[in-house]
Amino acid sequence: MNTTAIVDPRAAERVLASFGKQHAMRLIRANMPVVGHGLTEIHVPHWEGVEQQHGFVHGGVVGMIADSCGGYAAMTLLPAEATVLTVEYKLNLVAPADGDLLIARGEVVRPGRTLIITRAEVFAVRDKQPVLCALMQQTIMAMYGKAER
Amino acid sequence: MNTTAIVDPRAAERVLASFGKQHAMRLIRANMPVVGHGLTEIHVPHWEGVEQQHGFVHGGVVGMIADSCGGYAAMTLLPAEATVLTVEYKLNLVAPADGDLLIARGEVVRPGRTLIITRAEVFAVRDKQPVLCALMQQTIMAMYGKAER
Amino acid sequence: MNTTAIVDPRAAERVLASFGKQHAMRLIRANMPVVGHGLTEIHVPHWEGVEQQHGFVHGGVVGMIADSCGGYAAMTLLPAEATVLTVEYKLNLVAPADGDLLIARGEVVRPGRTLIITRAEVFAVRDKQPVLCALMQQTIMAMYGKAER
Amino acid sequence: MNTTAIVDPRAAERVLASFGKQHAMRLIRANMPVVGHGLTEIHVPHWEGVEQQHGFVHGGVVGMIADSCGGYAAMTLLPAEATVLTVEYKLNLVAPADGDLLIARGEVVRPGRTLIITRAEVFAVRDKQPVLCALMQQTIMAMYGKAER
Repeated sequence: MNTTAIVDPRAAERVLASFGKQHAMRLIRANMPVVGHGLTEIHVPHWEGVEQQHGFVHGGVVGMIADSCGGYAAMTLLPAEATVLTVEYKLNLVAPADGDLLIARGEVVRPGRTLIITRAEVFAVRDKQPVLCALMQQTIMAMYGKAER
Repeated sequence: MNTTAIVDPRAAERVLASFGKQHAMRLIRANMPVVGHGLTEIHVPHWEGVEQQHGFVHGGVVGMIADSCGGYAAMTLLPAEATVLTVEYKLNLVAPADGDLLIARGEVVRPGRTLIITRAEVFAVRDKQPVLCALMQQTIMAMYGKAER
Repeated sequence: MNTTAIVDPRAAERVLASFGKQHAMRLIRANMPVVGHGLTEIHVPHWEGVEQQHGFVHGGVVGMIADSCGGYAAMTLLPAEATVLTVEYKLNLVAPADGDLLIARGEVVRPGRTLIITRAEVFAVRDKQPVLCALMQQTIMAMYGKAER
Repeated sequence: MNTTAIVDPRAAERVLASFGKQHAMRLIRANMPVVGHGLTEIHVPHWEGVEQQHGFVHGGVVGMIADSCGGYAAMTLLPAEATVLTVEYKLNLVAPADGDLLIARGEVVRPGRTLIITRAEVFAVRDKQPVLCALMQQTIMAMYGKAER
C-alpha cells in the first residue's frame, strides 16, 4: 500500500465507531490509536487479565488483535455501505509476547472489490524496544449493502 | 487419532493445571470440560463481554479457543518434562458465532516428537443445535526440558 | 461430507473434462481415478521427472495435487454454469513423499454458495502401505456465469 | 531482512547445487537467477507444459515455486551442515498467472536457529509489466547434521 495516501476521514470514523462497539476489545483493554489508508494499529497494554500461565500476554490475544487490525485495515478502503468479514487468516507466533505493550499493525497488501489480502505484525514493546511476536496473512471479504448498524 | 485410547491421567492433570493458570481464559470465562487422548474441548458461554459489534461472539475469541484447544490436545500426548508452543495456525471463519455456548474441539491429527499437527472445529450451540463456525489447522512444537512451573 | 451421496454424473464429467485440459497435470503424469460427491482423488506415480534432490517426490508436486483435488472436490457440488477458483490454501508437509505412488484425496468440509472449505490429505504408498505426507486446508470460491470453455 | 547484506558465496553455491539436482524444477523449466542474503528468485517461462485449462500457468506451479524460493531463501542463511525442510506454508492466489514469465521472490522475514519464517510473492510478467499473482507465508525448519549429499 501507498501509506502516504490519506485515509478518507469518514471511513476512519466508521472504523473507530465499529471498533468502539466491540465489547471483546474493551474486555482485553484494546485501543486503536492509528487508522490510516489501508492500515490500522491496535494496542493492548500488558495487564494481568490477558496473561497466559508464564506471565506473557496470551497468544490468543495476540491472534485476536492481529485478526482485527487486518480486517479494519481493509475496511478503511471500502465505501460506507460495505462491511468486512474475516474469511480466514494464518498466524505465525515467533516469540512470547513479553513486554509492557502489544502493538498490532495491519495493512492491506492486495486490495480488491470482494476479496482483500492483508498482513499484520504484532510487536511486544519492552523498555521502548519492539520485538516481533507474530506475523499474519489474512483474507477479508467485503460485503456490500450490509452496512453495520 | 484413535479417540478410544485413554488419556494418561497425569497428562490430563497437567493440561488442566496449565489451563487453570491462564488469566486470559478466565477473562473470557472459558472452561475445559473435556480432556481426552490427543483431544480437548474448550467451552465459552455467550456473555456480553466477548461480543463484537453485532452481538455475536467475537471472531478473536473463536480463534483464541481454537488455538488453545489444539495446543492442549497436543500436550495430552507428551511426557511431563515437555511443554507446547504454537508455531502457527490457520483458521477459516465460516459462520458468525451466534449461540448461547461456543464449543471448540481440538484434536491431534499427526503426532510427532517435535512437531505435532492438530485441527480444531468451533461450534456455536443455539437451542441445543451446534452450528460450525470455524475450522483450524495448526502446527505445535514440543519443547523438552522446559516443563511449565 | 456425506460420502455415501452419489455424485451428479454430469458434474463428474465436467470435472474430468477440466482436469483433462490441464497440461500441467499431464506434465507430472497425474490422473484422477476417483470423483465422488464433494470428493476427488489425484494420483501421481513416482517417476524421475517429479523428484527433488533426495529422490523423493518434490514437495511442490505434493502441494500441486493437494490444491487441485480440493478445488475439484468443490466443483463436484456446483452447477454447470459455475467454475472454481482457489482463493488460498495452507499445507503442512509432515513426511517426505517416499513411495511408488502419491495419492491426494480432497474433500469438501464446508459447502457454501460462494466460499467452499475443503481439506486434503496426501499419502505416499510404498509396498502397498500409505504414509501420510501432507495435510491441507483450503478456501475455494465459486464463480457463477463463467463456465469453463 | 537487510537485503544489502552480501550472501555467503558458499551458501549461494550450496543453494544452486541443491536446486540443480531437483528434477521437478527442470521439468517445469524453472531457473534460479537470483540468490541473495535471505532471498532467492525462481523464474519459470510460460510454456504449454505448465498451463491449466484456460491457458494460464497452473496455480500448482505458482505454489511450487513460491514454496521452493522461500525454502532456498532460508538456506542462504544456514551453515554447510544444515539443510531445510518446509514445515508448512499458506498461499493466497490473487490473480491468474497470465504472462510470458513467472517470477517468484522469496525472502526470510524472521530468521531463527530452528524455525525460519519466510514470505514469497509471485508475479506474472506480461509486456514487461509484473502483476502480483500470489502471496505466501511459510515456516521452514533447519535440520543440522543432515547436509544434502
